[in-house]
Amino acid sequence: MIGIFDSGVGGLTVVKEIFKYLPKYQIIYFGDTARLPYGTKGANFVKKYSEKITRWLLQKKAKAIIIACNTSSAWASDSLKRKFKNVPVFEMISPAIAEALATTKNKKIGIIGTPGTIKSNVYQQKLLKIDPALKIFSQACPLLVPLVEEGLLEDNITIEIIKRYIDPLKKKGIDTLILGCTHYPLLKTVIEDTIDSGIKIINPAESLAKEVKKYLDNNSVVVKKIKQGSAHQFFFSDEPYNLEKISHLCFSKKIKPIVNDPFNV
Amino acid sequence: MIGIFDSGVGGLTVVKEIFKYLPKYQIIYFGDTARLPYGTKGANFVKKYSEKITRWLLQKKAKAIIIACNTSSAWASDSLKRKFKNVPVFEMISPAIAEALATTKNKKIGIIGTPGTIKSNVYQQKLLKIDPALKIFSQACPLLVPLVEEGLLEDNITIEIIKRYIDPLKKKGIDTLILGCTHYPLLKTVIEDTIDSGIKIINPAESLAKEVKKYLDNNSVVVKKIKQGSAHQFFFSDEPYNLEKISHLCFSKKIKPIVNDPFNV
Repeated sequence: MIGIFDSGVGGLTVVKEIFKYLPKYQIIYFGDTARLPYGTKGANFVKKYSEKITRWLLQKKAKAIIIACNTSSAWASDSLKRKFKNVPVFEMISPAIAEALATTKNKKIGIIGTPGTIKSNVYQQKLLKIDPALKIFSQACPLLVPLVEEGLLEDNITIEIIKRYIDPLKKKGIDTLILGCTHYPLLKTVIEDTIDSGIKIINPAESLAKEVKKYLDNNSVVVKKIKQGSAHQFFFSDEPYNLEKISHLCFSKKIKPIVNDPFNV
Repeated sequence: MIGIFDSGVGGLTVVKEIFKYLPKYQIIYFGDTARLPYGTKGANFVKKYSEKITRWLLQKKAKAIIIACNTSSAWASDSLKRKFKNVPVFEMISPAIAEALATTKNKKIGIIGTPGTIKSNVYQQKLLKIDPALKIFSQACPLLVPLVEEGLLEDNITIEIIKRYIDPLKKKGIDTLILGCTHYPLLKTVIEDTIDSGIKIINPAESLAKEVKKYLDNNSVVVKKIKQGSAHQFFFSDEPYNLEKISHLCFSKKIKPIVNDPFNV
């Protein structure tokens, strides 16, 4: 099984891409709904719970870990990779960065995300480390997650808010935009229609799924371990809000959640 | 000291009213930012943490407890009153209900709140228990908290969203509207201007502060205990998001948060 975790339901957009690129694999998902959102939480908090969840997924026989949460990828992926050396740990940021670098022509890249992800500066730092000549422009978009969770994907209000967030980036002349939050791929179409320009949009969930596929295509030992799984399982640490709406938007079908908080004292 | 708790910073609108009606008392505030929002969490989760926080406030020498969170008032106040009989426990709902009943003339009352509060049906049930002839209309408003936390109090987007939420209640002919979420008092003016009618708005934070004042005016023993406090203290279980903005909106000044999660394993 492949273990996938997020602070809530947003990581299901990653599951969607994993199902698309790796349809033969079983997954075990953990959404930390009891403690969401991670985007406005402190770094130490996010690190601590990312580690707890990873340990729990490994106990549940996951043989590879996908951090399907940008905030956790930003703050916890290095320490998780150090602490869990026996399993491959994938995160949202590096594959998206690689794709953005391969996409941009004018070296002007925009990033949108939660306040936590943007404040962490992780996308900017990693991009500039690879190419110091890049110009990076970022924008925290705290209202987009609630709008997605209400299912207001193509609403006038959502369009107005997207304009406010992205127009300043557009004015800077970006030719590539990274959707740095797991909820945002559900807004990809409306963002494209709203910004109405040649800006290429990078969906990190898709970049990640392609990277995992590439890794597994070259690691038959890991593949053999991962394939020893049962059916897909979706765990949440508290009743997930609007799961039906989000899972319908992702998979066009319902999923059956198992609600249980293994870390609750 | 008076202990006041909420899932985050919203309860500061209650503190504002306590400062106004009971300026001579010291308060100790606990915002459970590590686990916010409560509004989309399950009832058992909210009960469990409300009890943990109350116990913690009492250890910190609070001699009265104010539940400054509607979700927690809805789901945890009865059990807290049973479990902590030696201290007065105040909650958001009863005082607001009493004021709404005294205010309405046509017996049509509207309630807006988070999905959790509205789903709990607690306002409706308590109102109808007192007067079965009432007509109650409720509306979950999940987007209002993020808008307040971004400080978009008088923004066109906020006005548009308020219209969508409240117009259906207005059409039902309500003459009284209860703001059933601690963040909403910060929107009181814009709601009044937007709905532009004779509808009377009930701010439960103010109803509560008046009730606490009335209680203390008649209980000199409790007053004596409560007065043995030091300076105001503001605890948060994780770094509070946009505290500066919210505390400025509430008090026109900054507060100094102490960040510490006593329940983190």
